[in-house]
Amino acid sequence: MKLEVMPKQRAMEAEQREEAMEMSGLELWKHEKPAAMVFLPPPPPPLATLVPPLNFAMVDDGIFRSGFPAAANFRFLKSLNLRSIVYLCPEPYPETNAEFLAKNGIKLHQFGIEGRKEPFVNIPDDKIREALKVVLDVRNQPLLIHCKRGKHRTGCVVGCLRKLQKWCLSSVFDEYQRFAAAKARSTDQRFMELFDISSLKHLTASHC
Amino acid sequence: MKLEVMPKQRAMEAEQREEAMEMSGLELWKHEKPAAMVFLPPPPPPLATLVPPLNFAMVDDGIFRSGFPAAANFRFLKSLNLRSIVYLCPEPYPETNAEFLAKNGIKLHQFGIEGRKEPFVNIPDDKIREALKVVLDVRNQPLLIHCKRGKHRTGCVVGCLRKLQKWCLSSVFDEYQRFAAAKARSTDQRFMELFDISSLKHLTASHC
Repeated sequence: MKLEVMPKQRAMEAEQREEAMEMSGLELWKHEKPAAMVFLPPPPPPLATLVPPLNFAMVDDGIFRSGFPAAANFRFLKSLNLRSIVYLCPEPYPETNAEFLAKNGIKLHQFGIEGRKEPFVNIPDDKIREALKVVLDVRNQPLLIHCKRGKHRTGCVVGCLRKLQKWCLSSVFDEYQRFAAAKARSTDQRFMELFDISSLKHLTASHC
Repeated sequence: MKLEVMPKQRAMEAEQREEAMEMSGLELWKHEKPAAMVFLPPPPPPLATLVPPLNFAMVDDGIFRSGFPAAANFRFLKSLNLRSIVYLCPEPYPETNAEFLAKNGIKLHQFGIEGRKEPFVNIPDDKIREALKVVLDVRNQPLLIHCKRGKHRTGCVVGCLRKLQKWCLSSVFDEYQRFAAAKARSTDQRFMELFDISSLKHLTASHC
């Protein structure tokens, strides 16, 4: 967590430790060989920094995306006042995460999509479609869409949402690639291109 | 603009042209050598696709970021109902863009930051600070922050905004790198790390 500590704070911490040592008469640098182990008071907690999950971003009003949130991200997630999480992996939700959701009244919507690698990728059209219905329902927002790394499964759901928002396909791919980077998959991009949005158009009036 | 035309639409267009030809008696495929040049009716305009500017993304409620918008992006920008644009280059705003802004009642706030390359990068702290004050003022939102490519100057303003939002520095850098990609600059990252937010904290109560 070194990156979370600002230079100014580091200086403050050093000062505080120095003061504490002076107060307890433990001016170590005045002795060559201390007689016993010295227990310094613990440094103050780091500034109230927030740690967004991997690949976190805002998609639209009330819609966020990310990779799998860890306990370190819970305080940040709390600041989003989420109502729901749209989870795109088949694995059961970890207990710590489920507890966080229960404690904060966040509803979990799971759509188990296998995380296979190319050339065995098989994106189930029906699950992406069902996930999109949940995402577009304002009663579920603010919500976070996530899979494992926030690249492929999440990228496909967001890409199909962009098609509904009438984004041209090259911009949909640009955004997908920004998150997938070196791991971008042509199978995902083909899926988004061929995804038929006509049956979902009635859901978008309120949002897109 | 091939990418903007969906397969379904392409089929529809072909059908419409076919119908038009049949109606005008021009069933070309029945003749081996047409007697004269045939003028087909123009294809219908493409589906109302929207073209976001290069590197476009939502930063937060009412705050967007991108590269330089071209005329092709105006219809998309209109859909954002912008009140202001925060423009970070020293060059005068192009006439076409200025006209679009005037027509749509969008106010331009220019902060001329030179787009120098490493090792001659010199990010002026005062201009980033002034730009941030405009960005954080809800009376200016919704707004779009842009420079030329939406990577460095825009990345620095957004990075400093994230510090105000208490994001840890590693997440600030992650986001910066997602947009700058292979062009990420350590000078920009050092600038964001050392940027002192203390004088701006009073502006964030309503937003961050």
